[in-house]
Amino acid sequence: MNSPRLIDADALIAALQRFADERDWQPFHTPRNLMLALTGEVGELAEIFQWLTDDEAARLADDPARYTHLQEEIADVLLYLVRLASVMQVDLNQAVADKLVKNAIKYPAPVAKAET
Amino acid sequence: MNSPRLIDADALIAALQRFADERDWQPFHTPRNLMLALTGEVGELAEIFQWLTDDEAARLADDPARYTHLQEEIADVLLYLVRLASVMQVDLNQAVADKLVKNAIKYPAPVAKAET
Amino acid sequence: MNSPRLIDADALIAALQRFADERDWQPFHTPRNLMLALTGEVGELAEIFQWLTDDEAARLADDPARYTHLQEEIADVLLYLVRLASVMQVDLNQAVADKLVKNAIKYPAPVAKAET
Amino acid sequence: MNSPRLIDADALIAALQRFADERDWQPFHTPRNLMLALTGEVGELAEIFQWLTDDEAARLADDPARYTHLQEEIADVLLYLVRLASVMQVDLNQAVADKLVKNAIKYPAPVAKAET
Repeated sequence: MNSPRLIDADALIAALQRFADERDWQPFHTPRNLMLALTGEVGELAEIFQWLTDDEAARLADDPARYTHLQEEIADVLLYLVRLASVMQVDLNQAVADKLVKNAIKYPAPVAKAET
Repeated sequence: MNSPRLIDADALIAALQRFADERDWQPFHTPRNLMLALTGEVGELAEIFQWLTDDEAARLADDPARYTHLQEEIADVLLYLVRLASVMQVDLNQAVADKLVKNAIKYPAPVAKAET
Repeated sequence: MNSPRLIDADALIAALQRFADERDWQPFHTPRNLMLALTGEVGELAEIFQWLTDDEAARLADDPARYTHLQEEIADVLLYLVRLASVMQVDLNQAVADKLVKNAIKYPAPVAKAET
Repeated sequence: MNSPRLIDADALIAALQRFADERDWQPFHTPRNLMLALTGEVGELAEIFQWLTDDEAARLADDPARYTHLQEEIADVLLYLVRLASVMQVDLNQAVADKLVKNAIKYPAPVAKAET
């Protein structure tokens, strides 16, 4: 029995590939270009939080316009990250599975906690 | 009939939640903290590409050690982005689906291309 | 009579140029490479603040080791930013002078405040 | 005899302090807020370079509108970096001077080069 995948972005990867193909954007989607575009989107995401208190950030969903903006910027970061992984042929599920194992070794759970 | 989801990160979201719970990390996983941690990981990803030519970047998989490092840094960015979306209760699949529709309107595919 | 310069980085610009020349680093100091290197350093600076409360961040100087680390990361960001401006032949003093004027128009000071 | 300062931003630091004071912005200029704002501006700077070839990036000055935009984004990054250093009471000149010494030890100049 296979364990379920932690993340499955296959349909998104295919959609982004088709989107780029239809617009002849492949020449622009080099790893370094995508890295810079990812940086740009992370900047836009950071701007949402820059002047907020922790309380205001946690209650962002109360403001529909800002919450929609948050959703869009999270999506933009995710789209470029998935596209970068795709052109570099990085398997996202394998990458996060390996990293979670590494993190679990680096930061062991307290025994009492782990036993409950 | 539902269309398949573009991205399904439910198992990853649950794993990250459990990982944080077991270590009592919830108080640290505020939106702004996660945003800064995401920025840190994006910086580490950018470092991989900073002195490479486009050709060297495209052939990074030829160097197993560096490719493993790339996989780890992509994973780290993804982990913090998914965790940020989770604490903000943003539905990643809905967010990217909405954004792809918006992008398709903003950047229409050339007619000839779209018809093929 | 000339107004004093807001910022004078001439000696630093020259030092960075000499440093790169002595190591034959000019071919690596392309604008896009420097932009990625700047992103990397901003990530390292963000890491310092990621798990701190506002109070802890404000009192960082109380911890000499961490404060030295902060100074180094601020320096790294500044070095790459000044180097990027240098290779793009952007006059930093003129750029910030123009931007302050623009900001003053965009965010006018309250009248009562401005009069005091 | 003192060596000249590598960078002198005293007038800029004072101008930014006055600008914030006149608008009662001090409560917003916490280290973490400024860090996020800096990230936002770095993202805007990265966007300028994201789809350019190295040649196009190097010739950006040929396009006055884009070059002005570049100057503004470099200024924005610098303004937030200087402001962050200011609220953290980091001496920029000392920080870069120390870092250049450290870099010179880490990356020694080739002897032949250093002797010329």
